[in-house]
Amino acid sequence: MTASPRILEVRRNVLKHNDVIARELRERFRQAGVFVVSLVSSPGSGKTTFLEKTLSLLRPRYRVAALVGDLATENDAARLARSGAPVRQIVTGTVCHLEAEMIRGALGDWDLAQLDYLFIENVGNLVCPASYDLGEDGRAVLLSVTEGEDKPLKYPPIFHGADWALVTKFDLAEAAEFDFEAARRNLTAVCPGAAVLTVSAKTGKGMEEWVRVLAQRGRFAEG
Amino acid sequence: MTASPRILEVRRNVLKHNDVIARELRERFRQAGVFVVSLVSSPGSGKTTFLEKTLSLLRPRYRVAALVGDLATENDAARLARSGAPVRQIVTGTVCHLEAEMIRGALGDWDLAQLDYLFIENVGNLVCPASYDLGEDGRAVLLSVTEGEDKPLKYPPIFHGADWALVTKFDLAEAAEFDFEAARRNLTAVCPGAAVLTVSAKTGKGMEEWVRVLAQRGRFAEG
Repeated sequence: MTASPRILEVRRNVLKHNDVIARELRERFRQAGVFVVSLVSSPGSGKTTFLEKTLSLLRPRYRVAALVGDLATENDAARLARSGAPVRQIVTGTVCHLEAEMIRGALGDWDLAQLDYLFIENVGNLVCPASYDLGEDGRAVLLSVTEGEDKPLKYPPIFHGADWALVTKFDLAEAAEFDFEAARRNLTAVCPGAAVLTVSAKTGKGMEEWVRVLAQRGRFAEG
Repeated sequence: MTASPRILEVRRNVLKHNDVIARELRERFRQAGVFVVSLVSSPGSGKTTFLEKTLSLLRPRYRVAALVGDLATENDAARLARSGAPVRQIVTGTVCHLEAEMIRGALGDWDLAQLDYLFIENVGNLVCPASYDLGEDGRAVLLSVTEGEDKPLKYPPIFHGADWALVTKFDLAEAAEFDFEAARRNLTAVCPGAAVLTVSAKTGKGMEEWVRVLAQRGRFAEG
């Protein structure tokens, strides 16, 4: 709407620029042999707790690390660091999503060959991160049971590109009167290629299965 | 980061253009004597259920209507229409927020003098809507108990401009182990001017208080 053609043109250029850097990152990740997973979701759907648990479960067997984006505060990096994994925070200011250039900047000269898995936790936003390739191998979208079953239909772009759809806070499913079958139908309609998993980072239920799924996809699993 | 100066310049112009239309809308609302409240929050924090309940509670005494924004689907307009109030849906496509021009377009030649309250439900997004004035008299930000107490600190711009901070899904507070005092501290730090209310649209608890607060702020209350 507002100033549409101009905004669209600039946006196209920004995305083009982003894609160039994302390709560069993807090649760097491939050469280093690190498998990169990004996490996207609404604010408050439990990305950080989920990621902290994921890092802890992977750490005994794999070398893992994380980048985490937020508008403000370094709280999430501090929380994730409790897992023992190396973590770097990206503070975006007013920017509502991560971009490939922010990833490149945060990585600096980090020796990625020392890692098996790198996780990138995006800013909590179910819209804008959908457009920005970060060079990742796979994208996990989280949907907590308290958000409602209709979210895939209302925010299709971000669900559309997901490799994994993780239904989080499953311990609250009953209290939230969450209809999993309805959610699954909506997820299948919008992201037919995504594996749907139910998890509770709080009770741990479903987390081992997620880690198994991840381990099947890591580079070392591929050869 | 990416293409920052150029993006910033275009963004500045878009916001300037938005402000002009928002001022025009504000004047139109004032002349019509309608009190306009916008609602912002994460996806899934319960805006639509909350608004449906609000419309139902106000309807016996006031003339109310709503505009509702979503990337896709007209589901929310259909849900809100159950209250009996006139409702118009704005489908934004890939745009992550409402802009004043979208409001003007959706209103068309609607005779606003026939209304006491108009509600505008924004796209679920805790970042981008913060920058766009819609000509409203007041902005309510919703934070559901399942999202965590830290959200005001992590998404300060949208909380900063709020007139009311509504802690929603309060019926789930115990199950979600929500620490209300911590949330209140964070809200007070980021939006010291906002009235903090706890509500459950499901049980109805706190809704009458919210409607009383609103009635004190409507134009007819002012004179």
